[in-house]
Amino acid sequence: MGNCIQGCKDYFSRQKNTNIRLTLPVVCFVWQIAMIILFGVFIRYDEESDTHWVETKAHENITSDIENDFYFRYPSFQDVHVMIFVGFGFLMTFLKRYSFGAVGFNFLIASFGLQWALLMQGWFHSLDPQTGKIFIGVESLINADFCVAGCLIAYGAVLGKVSPVQLLVMTLFGVTLFAVEEYIILNLLHARDAGGSMVIHTFGGYYGLAISRVLYRPNLHQSKRMQGSVYHSDTFAMIGTLFLWMFWPSFNSAITDHGDGQHRAVINTYLCLASTVLTTVAISSLSQKTGKLDMVHIQNSTLAGGVALGTAAEFMISPYGALIVGFLCGIISTMGYIFISPFLEKTLKIQDTCGVHNLHAMPGVIGGIVGAITAAAASESVYGKQGLINTFDFTGDFKDRTVLTQGGYQAAGMCVSIVFGVVGGAIVGSILKLPIWGDPADENCFDDEVYWELPDEEEEHQESIPPILEYNNHMIHKQQELSESNFSVEHCES
Amino acid sequence: MGNCIQGCKDYFSRQKNTNIRLTLPVVCFVWQIAMIILFGVFIRYDEESDTHWVETKAHENITSDIENDFYFRYPSFQDVHVMIFVGFGFLMTFLKRYSFGAVGFNFLIASFGLQWALLMQGWFHSLDPQTGKIFIGVESLINADFCVAGCLIAYGAVLGKVSPVQLLVMTLFGVTLFAVEEYIILNLLHARDAGGSMVIHTFGGYYGLAISRVLYRPNLHQSKRMQGSVYHSDTFAMIGTLFLWMFWPSFNSAITDHGDGQHRAVINTYLCLASTVLTTVAISSLSQKTGKLDMVHIQNSTLAGGVALGTAAEFMISPYGALIVGFLCGIISTMGYIFISPFLEKTLKIQDTCGVHNLHAMPGVIGGIVGAITAAAASESVYGKQGLINTFDFTGDFKDRTVLTQGGYQAAGMCVSIVFGVVGGAIVGSILKLPIWGDPADENCFDDEVYWELPDEEEEHQESIPPILEYNNHMIHKQQELSESNFSVEHCES
Amino acid sequence: MGNCIQGCKDYFSRQKNTNIRLTLPVVCFVWQIAMIILFGVFIRYDEESDTHWVETKAHENITSDIENDFYFRYPSFQDVHVMIFVGFGFLMTFLKRYSFGAVGFNFLIASFGLQWALLMQGWFHSLDPQTGKIFIGVESLINADFCVAGCLIAYGAVLGKVSPVQLLVMTLFGVTLFAVEEYIILNLLHARDAGGSMVIHTFGGYYGLAISRVLYRPNLHQSKRMQGSVYHSDTFAMIGTLFLWMFWPSFNSAITDHGDGQHRAVINTYLCLASTVLTTVAISSLSQKTGKLDMVHIQNSTLAGGVALGTAAEFMISPYGALIVGFLCGIISTMGYIFISPFLEKTLKIQDTCGVHNLHAMPGVIGGIVGAITAAAASESVYGKQGLINTFDFTGDFKDRTVLTQGGYQAAGMCVSIVFGVVGGAIVGSILKLPIWGDPADENCFDDEVYWELPDEEEEHQESIPPILEYNNHMIHKQQELSESNFSVEHCES
Repeated sequence: MGNCIQGCKDYFSRQKNTNIRLTLPVVCFVWQIAMIILFGVFIRYDEESDTHWVETKAHENITSDIENDFYFRYPSFQDVHVMIFVGFGFLMTFLKRYSFGAVGFNFLIASFGLQWALLMQGWFHSLDPQTGKIFIGVESLINADFCVAGCLIAYGAVLGKVSPVQLLVMTLFGVTLFAVEEYIILNLLHARDAGGSMVIHTFGGYYGLAISRVLYRPNLHQSKRMQGSVYHSDTFAMIGTLFLWMFWPSFNSAITDHGDGQHRAVINTYLCLASTVLTTVAISSLSQKTGKLDMVHIQNSTLAGGVALGTAAEFMISPYGALIVGFLCGIISTMGYIFISPFLEKTLKIQDTCGVHNLHAMPGVIGGIVGAITAAAASESVYGKQGLINTFDFTGDFKDRTVLTQGGYQAAGMCVSIVFGVVGGAIVGSILKLPIWGDPADENCFDDEVYWELPDEEEEHQESIPPILEYNNHMIHKQQELSESNFSVEHCES
Repeated sequence: MGNCIQGCKDYFSRQKNTNIRLTLPVVCFVWQIAMIILFGVFIRYDEESDTHWVETKAHENITSDIENDFYFRYPSFQDVHVMIFVGFGFLMTFLKRYSFGAVGFNFLIASFGLQWALLMQGWFHSLDPQTGKIFIGVESLINADFCVAGCLIAYGAVLGKVSPVQLLVMTLFGVTLFAVEEYIILNLLHARDAGGSMVIHTFGGYYGLAISRVLYRPNLHQSKRMQGSVYHSDTFAMIGTLFLWMFWPSFNSAITDHGDGQHRAVINTYLCLASTVLTTVAISSLSQKTGKLDMVHIQNSTLAGGVALGTAAEFMISPYGALIVGFLCGIISTMGYIFISPFLEKTLKIQDTCGVHNLHAMPGVIGGIVGAITAAAASESVYGKQGLINTFDFTGDFKDRTVLTQGGYQAAGMCVSIVFGVVGGAIVGSILKLPIWGDPADENCFDDEVYWELPDEEEEHQESIPPILEYNNHMIHKQQELSESNFSVEHCES
Repeated sequence: MGNCIQGCKDYFSRQKNTNIRLTLPVVCFVWQIAMIILFGVFIRYDEESDTHWVETKAHENITSDIENDFYFRYPSFQDVHVMIFVGFGFLMTFLKRYSFGAVGFNFLIASFGLQWALLMQGWFHSLDPQTGKIFIGVESLINADFCVAGCLIAYGAVLGKVSPVQLLVMTLFGVTLFAVEEYIILNLLHARDAGGSMVIHTFGGYYGLAISRVLYRPNLHQSKRMQGSVYHSDTFAMIGTLFLWMFWPSFNSAITDHGDGQHRAVINTYLCLASTVLTTVAISSLSQKTGKLDMVHIQNSTLAGGVALGTAAEFMISPYGALIVGFLCGIISTMGYIFISPFLEKTLKIQDTCGVHNLHAMPGVIGGIVGAITAAAASESVYGKQGLINTFDFTGDFKDRTVLTQGGYQAAGMCVSIVFGVVGGAIVGSILKLPIWGDPADENCFDDEVYWELPDEEEEHQESIPPILEYNNHMIHKQQELSESNFSVEHCES
């Protein structure tokens, strides 16, 4: 028995082996083949993307092709797609030597995740009971991208400390958990969450933080030299920040109701984000001796408003309401970077590389609360009778629900997302702790060297800074001659 | 009296203090709170973004949600949004050490400016006389972005020489002036200017140049070492150039008439810009000894065609007409960088960091002239009877206006925009000259160090060029040993 | 006779002269003026972008402006536009010192090419027999961008080895050949190829490879030091990769049928590309000793799926079918980089800078085959009677064509595109071999220095690495003192 425990300990603490030449290809191949088989069994085009659309049109008296949902949602979909791949990918390039991992692994896990999301979300939300098939259209693609966003948020918490195989495993479970919590929140509780404050950001944030807690590395300081940014990596990160910021109105409006629903969600998000920028800058400047700004805050906290308006964006929160939400989020998120992140690391042992707690988890919770309050405060005088029904979808089983009850269910939804994030993350974290996934040693974290063939930089520098170095070499050479001459003189003397 | 003058002199020439830890947060907080209050009082959703849309639809016999203005303008809006934040922001990253300031301050002032623009433009253009409210929709957001563009253009002229507080003040007044001149040009003179050659580019350009003139720094050469680009900063700037160039058709068509108006504006701008690229390359190549190209020209002058078609893009200028405008603008703008910019700096003491005179002011004036001529030359045979009325909006008070008169009013509009730019800029420049805004000293211009916490680069270089430096260090060490051994030998001898 | 041969040899092997101060401006000016004249003679707005649209609407009983083709295609057009300028441009920035050439020349030839394409495609596809005019709208712009894509693909094969004048010549002929082969394939053979697997990628790929073969440089190893990437240039290239990847669904759906056609093409391409990423990563990891990933594969092979679905994207290939195509393409394309590219260079003497054989030519051929098979396998039970007619456009002269025949014609189309690429490229290559175009010497390939005014980097490094170097200098200085003191001591002794 003692032997066994010792064996276990040895097993877990053995020298890290980052060779993923077997595991990574195997996981990619097996999972992709599984996707093909499952798609073959389950996934079909929906009626708006099938060649039978011409018959559907005639049957349902649709006069024009422009009524196809594609034209309502495709521009927003493409914006969301950019956020997922360029936005999240480049936001994480801020580390001096982890840009390949940031953009590349983001690319990999999003590409896998969206396939798995189409299946999981299909099974839970749109499995046709008669045919046993899942019918997909542009809205399914948006939802798949949304689902992936949750996992990419979680990636932010463990950035630089895990292997791509771990990330794929994390995404597999993340998408699965996401689909379940989404089903509970949106279908069972019938909460509204078009931009995913709860479903995406709160869940994704806590999922990542819980995993990071389980994978805590006490000796992470050994790779401290790699944990900062350099000038150009910060500039690359701003590409991510801006594409996320600019397209967030599309994110929050992509699956809201046609017409005024999408229109209003865009206006609210646009205003909220503008307000966030100003308070982020204010707090960032306050936090430094001479009022200098910190790129970490500008890159991240400016986005908190979009997160916090995910639930309420489609509501009649009114333009000044959106500004207030943004105002508060800029303050809270920036404060988070200054005060809460160090606390989390020291006290709770949560190493949160990108600060997802400040950018997603906290603002997500705020978003859930804002959503619950604004839902509870909704009134027929503001929304109009039909408007209220449309906005909160008070139809079918839920046609007798009051706005107050709705507010309660919104709050319940938020709790569900937190629980799923924390518990799910803890379990998945334990799985990822197994020493078979090829994660890097503490001293090799945040370094692309481990998983990427890096270009040989030496040559470039020889190209670009010869004058100075040549001068140095020249000087050194001269010294050498001098010293050697000394030697010879001395030898002579002796 | 003499004492007073001396006191004034001392006051203005005292040591620069770039500590903005008080002013920047105060300005951000106070202004953002003011925005919230003013939005609360004035801004409401318009009928297409309000939950009452369902009733509006029924009332106005609108059969489908796709008729909501959102679907006509949202894709263009998002393109314009990208131009404002990524386009303008990254275009200005060309300086070797001012990328944070370029992207970051652009982000800050645009975020403030668009809120203030919604109010100012609302008061002047769409204040409902009965309710006293401003009703906003997607077109308002586009107009707010347009208004901000004027201020970002002005930023280009003073890039690297002002503090973020100065930029915010400049934006406050810039947006205010913009709304007034826009009201005069579009409403009173009833000139057409969908893409803003006059309203945005001419005004913004001269506004920035006038400010730069007032803030003239005779000793700017002291920061000459920072005024150039480096290889990667030029590549970053190309991101800005290309997003501006690609999305300019959306800029010029974003608020034109539904249907053929938007369609035609896109075609014209697309062609005009393509033509500009060829002549820019030609002149750039001609200007250098061996025909080498200059990145400054490629980054900037290639965009001049879009500026110059801002007014006429929606007219029947015909495809070859668009090509001619682009042809001329590429030549004139590139020539501007070669000949006029140095002249402006030496003779008129206008230090124009980004060359906004060549990219916005001059092409804007050309655009105004092209607009006036093509308007005056419009005929019923080309436009059709109804087409002419629609294009120039000859309805209501203006239903009897002839195309010739229209041409005259177009020209008058251009003069208004120049006057507002020059006079407004001179006044605002004087305000910005007060020594309370934390602007940098002459030797610290174009340096992010002043307003940003910069990453410690040292480490990076230790990382990336160890082989060479290690070799150096190694050699040095060896020398040391040698020398020391010499010493000891000598000591022995003595 | 011998003299003549010797003279020819001398003529061709004379010292390279890269001065393009005469040729480049002349070509740009003359061609742009020619464009203006030809546009004046031939190009007019089509009925949807003309001010007479208001009459067309009334005449054709179109109830809403939203029926204008502009609203069906503009969002896709803008995405395609981004792919052409940012996507292709930045994808080629991976070389350490050819980013200016990659982005800048891409910009130049695309801007020229799209004008020439509007004319060539207009003459072949949409010349109005009565008026002798070409009427253009948003679909024409998309087609022009597509045509340009073919030439940009070819640029990838010769990247860094040719002058901008050669590129313009290559584009002139490339667009011309493109328009002819497109006419044969789409109109005469009536093959379907909405995303251009055959017409764009196969043709463009082989066109570039054939040119590269003719321009073979046996001594290219002389510029080997410039042929690699550096860390940040690889990151820039990922911007290109991601924008191509994300917007490829728009590329393949931009000109497909309204409604279900565009909708389905998007879904298929989205899925296919996701699948490609996983197998690319798998093979890339397998190819290296410890499973490290290679940026070249991630940057390029991940896109192969989009190429290969160019023909079949609008067909009912079904979601799992799209995944299978992507699965195979990721494998084949990555294998191509590992095995085929070195073979092509050594054995066939084809120097393919960007590996367009693996990214465009091969996947394009696969796409042609996939298209032929899926067309031949189409059935009324899957497509529906009207759906089959709509998808394959079995109307007019082709109303009796069977799907099997269609499959045959698809295959024939692919052969046409290969023949045009290879033969056309060989001829154009011979023209480009004339020693009048200012191409660089073997030792100056892949270097922006030849055609661009480069910023002076020295200063930057003095700025950014003073601490280390200062330390070095300090140490050196100290040594010097030591040595000198030694000297003096010795002198004393003697």
